[in-house]
Formats: sequence, structure tokens, C-alpha cells
Amino acid sequence: MASAAPVFDPDFQAMLETLLRWRRDVRRFRTDPLPEELIDRLLDLACLAPSVGNSQPWRFVRVDTPALRAAIRAEVLKANEAAATAQADPRRAAYRALKLEGLDKAPLQLAVFAVTDPEQGHGLGRRTMPETVAYSAVLAIHTLWLAARAHDVGLGWVSILDPAPVVQLLDVPAGWGFIGYLCLGRAADEQEVPELERQGWQDRRPDCRQVLRR
Amino acid sequence: MASAAPVFDPDFQAMLETLLRWRRDVRRFRTDPLPEELIDRLLDLACLAPSVGNSQPWRFVRVDTPALRAAIRAEVLKANEAAATAQADPRRAAYRALKLEGLDKAPLQLAVFAVTDPEQGHGLGRRTMPETVAYSAVLAIHTLWLAARAHDVGLGWVSILDPAPVVQLLDVPAGWGFIGYLCLGRAADEQEVPELERQGWQDRRPDCRQVLRR
Repeated sequence: MASAAPVFDPDFQAMLETLLRWRRDVRRFRTDPLPEELIDRLLDLACLAPSVGNSQPWRFVRVDTPALRAAIRAEVLKANEAAATAQADPRRAAYRALKLEGLDKAPLQLAVFAVTDPEQGHGLGRRTMPETVAYSAVLAIHTLWLAARAHDVGLGWVSILDPAPVVQLLDVPAGWGFIGYLCLGRAADEQEVPELERQGWQDRRPDCRQVLRR
Repeated sequence: MASAAPVFDPDFQAMLETLLRWRRDVRRFRTDPLPEELIDRLLDLACLAPSVGNSQPWRFVRVDTPALRAAIRAEVLKANEAAATAQADPRRAAYRALKLEGLDKAPLQLAVFAVTDPEQGHGLGRRTMPETVAYSAVLAIHTLWLAARAHDVGLGWVSILDPAPVVQLLDVPAGWGFIGYLCLGRAADEQEVPELERQGWQDRRPDCRQVLRR
């Protein structure tokens, strides 16, 4: 309470932009484990995320056992195959391989959940938009992502997964909704340009920065 | 492509933590307008957010006209009243007043949408979890939030709103889903402790930092 409000100078602003530009959805990891104290630190930082009604609904499951990792990998493969039946795009196949490589090598794997109806926060701010609870867990993931990158740790978000089997496999408490599966570790290479752009999948496009005036 | 990967040193890591700790859901704004070039810069930074399949589905509507701002305010009031009927908590009333104060004073107001079924990204990564498109817009909001705070601009997210009338009032293109309504401006005061905590509504709690091992 007593501490003075910080001043963020132009040097910090520039470095923050660098962080935003160099944050990547990492798929190629080194296999060496992350120090436990670094994992703790990153999770502490993630929990500084904003949340609706200060409900802090994010929950983490650390997936360590080879059997469970293999089961998750199989689920991703299954969801991938289902998505690929409609088309035989060679780039898609290449990208799929890359996703799986992340799951095979990343030393830290975290499944992130949101408590669907948290007592904490007393329901404030989510009556009309209950999805803001899930959004709060997304904010924690992004906070983790940026904090990790600033500590030289890469993060990749695997979204090609059917939530139901993940919930079952990881045997989480009732009322936890699956948000995303994260691979973390030291990146095998550092890239300023997104993987999907380098693979020729999808460039960033300036026209998405669309601001209507009303 | 040619630029070297950046190194984030301990000073930057410490300042990033300060940014995360001092980011606030701001409700008390000064009324002086933000410079246009600063608004542009912050929106550019927001668009550096990650997105599923690099689909960049976020869209912004800047709400400037007093009539529309009043209509949005009326919608928040309506949603608030509906939420308050069940209880007569004096803190809730106090907090409600605070929310409205933000809407009355913030010089910049942005409604954020997500293109529900974006062509960009070719559907990658969202077949099993279509909600990742909305999540991508949430990631852009959080990027804007942090960038704004680093540039001495406060942001408050108003979630007590029924999405349907917002879509109608702002007359957005078909297929845009409402994500959140943001108030931005210079903060009237700087606080390290969240407003909800200071108001006695909901403290941050250490037990939310729960990590199961599997």
C-alpha cells in the first residue's frame, strides 16, 4: 500500500514491445527440464492476471507421467486426423508434425482449467457474460506466456484437443472446464516471425487492425 | 528475420513484474483525451497478440458519440439492476456506482469483438474448441491492457452488459461476437491493490494458485 506508483520509461516501453513481438507460439523445444524454482516463479506471475470479480478461477494441472502425456498426444493426433480428413494440404501435415513435436519434447506440460462457477468473486460481473470466467483463465495463460518469454522460456498452446477426454484423463475436480494445454521449455530456436507465417500458412495481416467509429 | 533474438535481463524481468502487479482494472479516470497517436500506438501493440491459427479475429469499435455512450451506460445500468435484485449488499451498490463512473468519464471507450468464423487462419486449431477465437480477442485485450499501463493509460473492462443490445446499438458487421467493453484514460489515482480488494469485495487468495500433479 505504501509503495509509490511506478514510472514506466521509454526504455521499458520499447523492451515491452520487443517482448510482444518476440513472444512466439513455440513448437520446437529443448528437452532439458526447467528449474523448479523458475516454474514456481512463472506460476506466481501468471496468478497476477486480472479476473472477473477478482474470482481467480484459473487452475493448473501439471502433466508429468509418460502414460498421461502419451494419452494426451493420442488425443491431439485424433483431433488432428479428424480435422485433416477434409483436405490433404501438405502444409497442414507439416504443421501437424510440428505440433506433435512440441508434445514429445517439451519438458513442462500444463493443462489449464477454469472453475466454471467460482464462489470467489461472488458472481460479480459475470451474470450476463458467464464466459468471462473462462476469459479470466485465458488472461492467466497470456500472463504466463509473456512472463515465460521474459525468462527465456517458450510456450506453445495446443488447442487441437477435444476437452471431454482431457477432463477425464486428468481426473480433475468437478466443475473445472478445460481451457488449454500448454507446452513449456527452452525454445530450440528463437524466431521473430510466427511459425505459421514461416510455414506459409497464414501471415499477419494489417487489415485485421480494423477500428470502426461509432 | 535478420534481427537477433533479444535478451531480457533481470531489470526488465523485475519491471515486467511491477507492470503485472500495478496493472489495475481502472474505474476512476481523468477526462482529458488521450493523444490520437498514443491510441494508434496502443492498438498496434494490441494486434501483436497471439491468435488461434494466426487468425487475428479481434475487431475494435471506438464509441465516441454521447448518444451511444449514454445508450451503453443505460445497458450497464439495466444489467446491474437485474444482478442486484437478489441482494442488497451495500458494497455492491458502491461498486456499481464506481463502474458507472468509469463509463461517464473515460475519454476513450472501445467495444471489442471477435469475428466468430474468421476466414483468416483457415480454421486451424479451432475445430474442437471454436471458443479459441473469442479467446484470441481476449488475448488482444490483455495485450492492450498491459501496453496501456506501460504508457500510463488505465483500462477498465466492463463485463456487466448483455451482448445482444451492444451488437445492435453499435451496428457491427454480421458475424462479430461481442467480447468486452473497455474504458481507457489517464487514471485518477494509482493503486497497487485491486479496487475490489480495497472495497472489501474480494481479496486475492493464495489458494487459487493450485497446481495438481498428474
